[in-house]
Amino acid sequence: MRAEGRTLMSYAPDIKVLDCTLRDGGLVNDFFFTDEFVKALYHANIRAGVDYMEFGYKASKELFDVNKFGKWKFCNDKDIREIVGDNKTDMKISVMADVGRCDFKKDILNKKDSPIDLIRIATYINTIPAAIEMIEDCTKKGYETTVNIMAISKSNEEDINAALELLCKSSVGTIYLVDSYGSLYPEQVGSLAQRYLEVANKYGKRVGIHAHNNQQLAFANTIESVIRGVCYLDATVSGMGRGCGNCPSEILLGFLKNPKYNINPLLQFIENHIIPLRESGVVWGYDIPYLLTGILNQHPKTAIQFEKEQRKDYNNFYLELLDNF
Amino acid sequence: MRAEGRTLMSYAPDIKVLDCTLRDGGLVNDFFFTDEFVKALYHANIRAGVDYMEFGYKASKELFDVNKFGKWKFCNDKDIREIVGDNKTDMKISVMADVGRCDFKKDILNKKDSPIDLIRIATYINTIPAAIEMIEDCTKKGYETTVNIMAISKSNEEDINAALELLCKSSVGTIYLVDSYGSLYPEQVGSLAQRYLEVANKYGKRVGIHAHNNQQLAFANTIESVIRGVCYLDATVSGMGRGCGNCPSEILLGFLKNPKYNINPLLQFIENHIIPLRESGVVWGYDIPYLLTGILNQHPKTAIQFEKEQRKDYNNFYLELLDNF
Repeated sequence: MRAEGRTLMSYAPDIKVLDCTLRDGGLVNDFFFTDEFVKALYHANIRAGVDYMEFGYKASKELFDVNKFGKWKFCNDKDIREIVGDNKTDMKISVMADVGRCDFKKDILNKKDSPIDLIRIATYINTIPAAIEMIEDCTKKGYETTVNIMAISKSNEEDINAALELLCKSSVGTIYLVDSYGSLYPEQVGSLAQRYLEVANKYGKRVGIHAHNNQQLAFANTIESVIRGVCYLDATVSGMGRGCGNCPSEILLGFLKNPKYNINPLLQFIENHIIPLRESGVVWGYDIPYLLTGILNQHPKTAIQFEKEQRKDYNNFYLELLDNF
Repeated sequence: MRAEGRTLMSYAPDIKVLDCTLRDGGLVNDFFFTDEFVKALYHANIRAGVDYMEFGYKASKELFDVNKFGKWKFCNDKDIREIVGDNKTDMKISVMADVGRCDFKKDILNKKDSPIDLIRIATYINTIPAAIEMIEDCTKKGYETTVNIMAISKSNEEDINAALELLCKSSVGTIYLVDSYGSLYPEQVGSLAQRYLEVANKYGKRVGIHAHNNQQLAFANTIESVIRGVCYLDATVSGMGRGCGNCPSEILLGFLKNPKYNINPLLQFIENHIIPLRESGVVWGYDIPYLLTGILNQHPKTAIQFEKEQRKDYNNFYLELLDNF
């Protein structure tokens, strides 16, 4: 099942690491990162050899109150530019735009006027045509694009196949396999990756992986995908992300053998910025309520509510989840 | 590579779950568990369907000062009996005995006089004959036995094969694949499991897995082993164990499909006993220094020292580890 050229000793030059600490981590602290944190992360990622850094969402300012969130929920081009200048580096800049939650026509400028390189479009499986409209708009404006099909662990095979065919006929560059609920086991991720790759290879597209750590499988699922031939890999520093978080970039870069990758800058960033962030009360990592929504393949909204109420009665919570299975 | 009868939907009746919370967790708090904790864990494990509960080590009282450790480092039969009585349950009791660190002839009584069912013998690859002497002594006394070959990630293939052949010719029941340093990736665990199983099947022995979580792979490596046909699975509640800890039993039991397993009692135990234990200052879980010794396939002693000195300079620590690679 190993894709050609994938071994534990050598490396696959097509692999790209995408740091989404600000975006997935922003879900933990409503995107209130200090500029110092963001700048330090930007420079750490460059030195670590990270290929893309995602700054956050391009969320609609009509749908979301700009006063209730930090600026990285909206990712104004000028805010990114204040961190990266003209970004004269090998690392590319990405933002995520959710179908139905952004004003892409207005808020996404032409690439030639923007520091952003890649627009990542997130969609549910029932809004693929809307995603394709966004993909084509972004392509026309000059961007690279990826598409993340969310919540596929709730979708059936026929729908996934249809979605892949539709998307592969668009101008999108990379299609992401997303384990939204952290419910998938490596074996399942492996066969999904295989299916994604079959269609993608037919159309000359690439496949990416975005994993969640509810069952402590984010890294395992990421490397299972790598073995199959998936090449865009999402990670966040120390796994920062909602609930149990994501695939930690320091583990992923410790695994990848391409000499361009280097974990030292990430270690320095963790000691200087992640430890203080945790000490300031920002919480993420392995946690029972998120484990339980993962095991049951459910959206983590109930776990979020459980945490908000500072409940600790895990057993009752599990019984409630089973009631609503 | 899937062993016959292993699917994600059904279950393999030969699978046994062994809870080693007291033993591996004891490395975190020098085995100072309250009787209340131990009793609650015992009852939670029974209700959860756990097959074996390990109470700790049978360590030599001549080599180790009984005043410096809690009683579960020594596991006197009478101390176990105070918790379990005659253990008239379906769950069996185990203890671990390290080659060269126990007085097995004196301290391990005849099975008929003991509440213990299973003696687990831990050995390095260079002390296999001493391990076999212990195995035969324990078999003669009437116990089930397993053997854990430690630190195999530092051993070569030829030595591992020779060790497996020697051990399989002994009276031991189960041979454990142990990822002592948390350095192994699922693919490596998969091929090692395959090798262990080949020899074990030839001699009618079983294979077990004991994983560590340095790279957040303990659960992933455990299920990779299950797929191959490994059937004795070690786990600890909330992954309690030195450094990054072990495979969490609540995740493992959430995965296993045998209806005898039930995570509710473990969830109750976590809310009533693990949360207070953590709040009392006992620390384990994903942590950068242990990640780094895992990535570099090294004994965690340097990470233990780093933590003891309350250092946080991860980057310097990594450079030191590379110096001593």
